[in-house]
Amino acid sequence: MKLIAKIIPIKSVRPLAIMNQSDAEELGVFEGDRVRLVAGRKYLTATVQIALGFIEKGYIGICLKSAEDLGVEDGSEVDVIPIPKPASFEYIRKKLDGHKLTREEIYEIVRDIVNDALTEVELTAFVLSSYVHGMDLDEVEWMTRAMIETGETIDFEEGIVVDKHSIGGVPGNKISLIIVPTVASAGLLIPKTASRAITSASGTADTMEVLANVNLSIEEIKEITLRVGGVIAWGGATNIAPADDKIIRVEYPLAIDPRSQLLASVMAKKGAIGAEHVVIDVPVGEGSKVPDVEEGKKLANDFVELGRRLGLNVTCAITYGGQPVGRAVGPALEAWEALKAMEERKGAKSLMEKALGIAGIIFEMVGKTTNGYEYAKEIFESGKTLEKFKQIVEAQGGDPNVRSDDIPIGDKTYDVISPIDGAVAKVYNSRIVKVARAAGAPKDKGAGVLLFKKGGFHVKKGDVLFRIYAEKEWKLDKAIEVALKEPPVVVSGMILERYPSYRWMR
Amino acid sequence: MKLIAKIIPIKSVRPLAIMNQSDAEELGVFEGDRVRLVAGRKYLTATVQIALGFIEKGYIGICLKSAEDLGVEDGSEVDVIPIPKPASFEYIRKKLDGHKLTREEIYEIVRDIVNDALTEVELTAFVLSSYVHGMDLDEVEWMTRAMIETGETIDFEEGIVVDKHSIGGVPGNKISLIIVPTVASAGLLIPKTASRAITSASGTADTMEVLANVNLSIEEIKEITLRVGGVIAWGGATNIAPADDKIIRVEYPLAIDPRSQLLASVMAKKGAIGAEHVVIDVPVGEGSKVPDVEEGKKLANDFVELGRRLGLNVTCAITYGGQPVGRAVGPALEAWEALKAMEERKGAKSLMEKALGIAGIIFEMVGKTTNGYEYAKEIFESGKTLEKFKQIVEAQGGDPNVRSDDIPIGDKTYDVISPIDGAVAKVYNSRIVKVARAAGAPKDKGAGVLLFKKGGFHVKKGDVLFRIYAEKEWKLDKAIEVALKEPPVVVSGMILERYPSYRWMR
Repeated sequence: MKLIAKIIPIKSVRPLAIMNQSDAEELGVFEGDRVRLVAGRKYLTATVQIALGFIEKGYIGICLKSAEDLGVEDGSEVDVIPIPKPASFEYIRKKLDGHKLTREEIYEIVRDIVNDALTEVELTAFVLSSYVHGMDLDEVEWMTRAMIETGETIDFEEGIVVDKHSIGGVPGNKISLIIVPTVASAGLLIPKTASRAITSASGTADTMEVLANVNLSIEEIKEITLRVGGVIAWGGATNIAPADDKIIRVEYPLAIDPRSQLLASVMAKKGAIGAEHVVIDVPVGEGSKVPDVEEGKKLANDFVELGRRLGLNVTCAITYGGQPVGRAVGPALEAWEALKAMEERKGAKSLMEKALGIAGIIFEMVGKTTNGYEYAKEIFESGKTLEKFKQIVEAQGGDPNVRSDDIPIGDKTYDVISPIDGAVAKVYNSRIVKVARAAGAPKDKGAGVLLFKKGGFHVKKGDVLFRIYAEKEWKLDKAIEVALKEPPVVVSGMILERYPSYRWMR
Repeated sequence: MKLIAKIIPIKSVRPLAIMNQSDAEELGVFEGDRVRLVAGRKYLTATVQIALGFIEKGYIGICLKSAEDLGVEDGSEVDVIPIPKPASFEYIRKKLDGHKLTREEIYEIVRDIVNDALTEVELTAFVLSSYVHGMDLDEVEWMTRAMIETGETIDFEEGIVVDKHSIGGVPGNKISLIIVPTVASAGLLIPKTASRAITSASGTADTMEVLANVNLSIEEIKEITLRVGGVIAWGGATNIAPADDKIIRVEYPLAIDPRSQLLASVMAKKGAIGAEHVVIDVPVGEGSKVPDVEEGKKLANDFVELGRRLGLNVTCAITYGGQPVGRAVGPALEAWEALKAMEERKGAKSLMEKALGIAGIIFEMVGKTTNGYEYAKEIFESGKTLEKFKQIVEAQGGDPNVRSDDIPIGDKTYDVISPIDGAVAKVYNSRIVKVARAAGAPKDKGAGVLLFKKGGFHVKKGDVLFRIYAEKEWKLDKAIEVALKEPPVVVSGMILERYPSYRWMR
């Protein structure tokens, strides 16, 4: 069917063919069907959308980018041909019906995800089907391999390549800023790609960006790693495992994170950058992604087995995720806390124990030592971690002479104090994040929360429990409102509860 | 956050807030999140879409209709406020995790579907969750009631109101054109709402539209039914069970039809028009929706029990759906076949047996007779069915004096003949539909297929198996191509297969 192009000044992820109801009926297509748009020798696949009144019969609305790709302008003729759904759609239907997919089927699905050949509804169906029915380790392995192979990869010809990854869920987890230089200063290669915050207050990429450029290409990641031993880059700037970003785009609005996708996503990123030894940090506990150690062990087991199948040596560190790591939450505050610890060669106990513990596991995995924690602690306390961190910052275009106290923190602050004498009964991860985000994190780098009292600490009436930082007055006000409505830090007297709570009637 | 409106010349189903990445980060929202757009005293809820390059920082793209609703124009200021997902989203997540929903939760979901408060991804998640996990009869009952209550309904103050519904899947099913007047001429009220074809060659509404207007309001349906006893209207022109159309829009691209939605959809429509006695036609067999009689019985059982809960007297007719009903497939051809049968007081055996059989069940249900089939046959053969049909056609604005041979049929035809002597071994429902649709049905009313030989018929070499009708030469050519590639009618010699197929090696 020949139609006249009408160019619509929007850009859509997938090409759209916006048609009049009557033309669509004539062509025998419905909303969501695929058509091929042909102009001369150029063509592309588009998804039919029925215009609600603004495209006349005989016309077809196409977006800016499609018009460019087809080389057509307003008034050009475009041939519109119905085409069937891609084969991968049948495989998604198969998974939806609870059947196991083959290697070839999974590869086809992942290729179509990367090429934007699936509509949003179809991709949603795939993610939901793997959420509801799960995938076995064969399927997860194929998924991981397909995700690696459909993106860019790094092959280090020399050196021992290690990596670490946290599955997330615990605020203030700035440990990579300490682990990467500690490990690199011992001669290992650690090309760490990190993510930005989606629902958290700061991703490692957001935190590192306070001090250096994290938008590195895959060539830059390799070059810097070979030169100084380590890097902390934003994975999203590369084309590593590109299917992952597209899947996450669908998971986010559904607030789901299928186990199979979590496994494949992490391992694909680690496999793609050529890591041989990997530590996976699995925070467990209330308010983190994994409720308890038992569940953490199951997940750890899958990571280790998946690593074995992919030729990666994997160890999982099941860590305490019931409250924030260290004291600072928010990009600049976290960068400040990590750098301060490196400068002073000491820091908050939870931060030091976790960062050096994981660095230590890496040292043991590669056979450097049988007491990794002590080995890492020695490096850290000798000042080598700081020295290496400065080299990394410089290699990533930052100022190597930056000092923690130079880091700009939001100058609008508010202290939340304890109303009573007692002890901190609870620190809520999700509430801390809510306050930090209301204050402006991660977009406003200087916004966040600094904890003065964590779980178990004794407090006196009037003690500062935490301080909110913001760059803008109105955001500080909003954050205070959130903090007062749902207190992130709860103090109780020593008697936490009275049971039964009623008093005996006399 | 205050942004400047930029009006985009598109109309979308749900209001969109097209934002610059930087503004979205500043506001802390992601694609798919909800925001409230406020202009003066007017406001609406919109879904965030991140502009790919064409909306500058400080601006917000909104569609024509939203701009009208807000009373803003290009350059007006709009306040953008993030708001949480609706409560129904939590219930969808609950169903996704396999839990049973409560009555209140289902009502909330249905209300939000009707009000377009759920995004396409969220609605997809709901439909998929009920496909994968199913719903029990409590949930289906609540779903049905909620669908009825969120739309228009008819209350007939007098008369016995009956109805019939086919769950579909078998081509050429023009029985309603005979059942409705037969039943109405016996003094019952039958306000039949029908659907248009989505993937078939003709829906009952498409077929009836050849002879009369089917776009009737709910008031017209009631008035005509009270006046002449029956009506055959397009349900889509009314606001009966509006949630159903929105759910179908998501089911179509996924090619799924969850059992629970099928039950709720059918029964909501019947309940809404005030039917007391309903026959459900469940075609079974290869190529129809239900594979065999056993499965048909299970579905029938659910229909009957659901009817009992809703106060509807339901009987299911499990019918043979392995090949088309009658000989004609396509709107005008089907109208022709039905009208011809009424004029001649006889017709194809499969058509007469099914139409009069179902009319007969209705007569038995209301206690008119204990031999419904004979009762219906008498009415039909007396000419009363034709007489009543003409009254209905006239009441719906058609020509009551129309004769079957006046009906315009496509004048481009092609006969497919048998290449051998033998018998018809198979008639493929799906292939017949494919050919009819390629020929232009249902959009071109005169397009379709007329069968001369059906399953079991003996044929001689050169006999016409079926004739393709089209209104346009190029569509006829396409239909011929489809028919030759995948033959809809297959003739075999009497030895259908040789087993083992290899010959003994000597």
